[in-house]
Amino acid sequence: MFKEIKENVKKQHPLIHCITNYVTVNDVANMILAVDGSPIMADEIKEAADITSITNALVINIGTLNQTKVESMIAAGKKANELHHPVILDPVGAGASPYRNEVTERLLKEVQFTVIKGNISEIKCIAQKTNTTSGVDANDADLVNEDNLDEVIVFAKKLSQQTGAVIAITGPIDIVCDEQQTYLIKNGHPMMSKITGTGCMLAGVIAVYIAANPSNSLEATACAITMMGVAGELANTKMNALQSGTSSFRTYLIDAMSMMDIDTLNGGMKVEIQ
Amino acid sequence: MFKEIKENVKKQHPLIHCITNYVTVNDVANMILAVDGSPIMADEIKEAADITSITNALVINIGTLNQTKVESMIAAGKKANELHHPVILDPVGAGASPYRNEVTERLLKEVQFTVIKGNISEIKCIAQKTNTTSGVDANDADLVNEDNLDEVIVFAKKLSQQTGAVIAITGPIDIVCDEQQTYLIKNGHPMMSKITGTGCMLAGVIAVYIAANPSNSLEATACAITMMGVAGELANTKMNALQSGTSSFRTYLIDAMSMMDIDTLNGGMKVEIQ
Amino acid sequence: MFKEIKENVKKQHPLIHCITNYVTVNDVANMILAVDGSPIMADEIKEAADITSITNALVINIGTLNQTKVESMIAAGKKANELHHPVILDPVGAGASPYRNEVTERLLKEVQFTVIKGNISEIKCIAQKTNTTSGVDANDADLVNEDNLDEVIVFAKKLSQQTGAVIAITGPIDIVCDEQQTYLIKNGHPMMSKITGTGCMLAGVIAVYIAANPSNSLEATACAITMMGVAGELANTKMNALQSGTSSFRTYLIDAMSMMDIDTLNGGMKVEIQ
Repeated sequence: MFKEIKENVKKQHPLIHCITNYVTVNDVANMILAVDGSPIMADEIKEAADITSITNALVINIGTLNQTKVESMIAAGKKANELHHPVILDPVGAGASPYRNEVTERLLKEVQFTVIKGNISEIKCIAQKTNTTSGVDANDADLVNEDNLDEVIVFAKKLSQQTGAVIAITGPIDIVCDEQQTYLIKNGHPMMSKITGTGCMLAGVIAVYIAANPSNSLEATACAITMMGVAGELANTKMNALQSGTSSFRTYLIDAMSMMDIDTLNGGMKVEIQ
Repeated sequence: MFKEIKENVKKQHPLIHCITNYVTVNDVANMILAVDGSPIMADEIKEAADITSITNALVINIGTLNQTKVESMIAAGKKANELHHPVILDPVGAGASPYRNEVTERLLKEVQFTVIKGNISEIKCIAQKTNTTSGVDANDADLVNEDNLDEVIVFAKKLSQQTGAVIAITGPIDIVCDEQQTYLIKNGHPMMSKITGTGCMLAGVIAVYIAANPSNSLEATACAITMMGVAGELANTKMNALQSGTSSFRTYLIDAMSMMDIDTLNGGMKVEIQ
Repeated sequence: MFKEIKENVKKQHPLIHCITNYVTVNDVANMILAVDGSPIMADEIKEAADITSITNALVINIGTLNQTKVESMIAAGKKANELHHPVILDPVGAGASPYRNEVTERLLKEVQFTVIKGNISEIKCIAQKTNTTSGVDANDADLVNEDNLDEVIVFAKKLSQQTGAVIAITGPIDIVCDEQQTYLIKNGHPMMSKITGTGCMLAGVIAVYIAANPSNSLEATACAITMMGVAGELANTKMNALQSGTSSFRTYLIDAMSMMDIDTLNGGMKVEIQ
């Protein structure tokens, strides 16, 4: 699994336009480079659509919004749609404020997304306006587990149908689906929530992967998420072996992604397709 | 010392709203996570006060100001005051420009701070409008040493009385005081000024600690500063042992904070209470 | 070679004002500290010129532009010119959008630069409006090699004459020249393009070096670039030895710069003067 998906990335070295938050932007850029993509960050309205035109995919991440950046997101998103470039939405902290909800709603109305990726609280907020987000982490009460898994899959498939996007819900069990098919990914490690930006970096990786696999966004997204999960496990093992801490874990995570070949991926992945 | 202070943090996992500079924001977020807090960065006026409402403490750091961000600082600060959330001011580079002085003055007038933390140049600027700051580092002529220590303590206590805030002056000897009591902390290492952001990260740690210890801001602030000092020493030891350089030091510093238990803290701390 | 250049930096600890992008700003700050400089980032128009006044050199990096930041670049650049402070232009991604070209043109018209540093695509864009840039990396077709080297040197010398600036073109062979003299530097490693910000960090190092060597900008720039090249090789060696990845490489690069003494530099450098 995922062999051709990964080879397409290697061949194409996709260029990714990111309109993202200033907290994790450096990690996102380094992660995109680590997985054989190339990043360009640009959020000024006078160039946003032009930059989208010369790139292969667009990431919209609402982690640190401001009013001018939102206009650039809309302009770039519309241009990407016009050019049939893939666009990924990372609704960081959706539900945390009325403004984030309003912006998320406007983005979903004006831009057609290829992939929508978030934790369960963020995705629920998009779908149900439940506003259960506490800060930028998922609310514990929302977490996906074996008990509510089937229910969440039904919910995710419905959202995919409504939005036309691949839906990726990250958590202890990652769910990636379109209307027909679902990938369940049981890789990853709790340490990944002890550093900032794993979700933002993941959105960058997904963008690289769907840019190189335009006719297979579902599998490309699942591949990206599985890679991150396996890398998280490898990074945790290394952190423990070297008795280091959370900042080393971040380094090891990006390192592991930069060295992730198909054998490592296939050896470590725990993926189920339904 | 500090045992209960630390346990309260572990129990409460405080959520911290940071309006901070874009230079060190990633380190601040990772440091807050390393010490069992959770960060959210938001500086758009349309959500600043709303984000403050769902968090447990607010950090205002003036490292990279702009006019719209200042309005968000004021709005968030007023909301935090209204909700009795702790607010910490990190007046990075106060004295470096008339604009920073003007903003600092306005912040002090419109927001009630729980803790004001800076190097001696920044704190003097706040208190005396001496403008001796050179860039964002403390001016050598201002450094606290054994000779001028008593004088600086008197000065800090007076500022605490004037502002109603715990005053924390960082340097070779850290001073943390309110009107009554003073903690002198002789931990830390000169290497901490060879990387950017130790001060900004410290403000994040203080926010986590005062959020979880609302009735004991003085001791919580002293605990946070002592932890950073001990972590700086451990990071320097590791850097020397592994013959690595300044960027590794940054990693080791955050690592050490993420692994700092009460025994390590008590074993390494050099704290005197007056 | 470079001994006195390096000693002047050690003695003077220059303070560098950076108006730079938010992607790599943390790396730039840490790199400036690693090479015995001190950074201050400030891009608000109300303080940009004031901050320039208290510093020793100015870096203008157009990586993430916005309209208000451009006004601050112009104001700071003019103030630096007035005070005879060195100013370095890093035209990141010039050619990627009409807006970047327009801003670059305006900067070159309104500010006199001491050094202009970019990859060949960026520098060609400045000189010839060729717009061959793809994203923020150099276009492969543009790369300097043994075959086109003489041609590129002629081009660079002419641009130096036109702009009055030292021209630094980075790539497999780095070219640093003024109207008279050319340094060819064959250090460096392809890994340096697998992380974000090596170019931005280099601009910071050049700023530190020209600030401390005002009467010798050409050699100071060549020294800074050679140091980065040697550090890149050392970092790559360490990465391979420890079987780590791209994020570790970034750490090792900054580490190597923080430990770079004159013997290491002279032992590793491959510099030719024409």
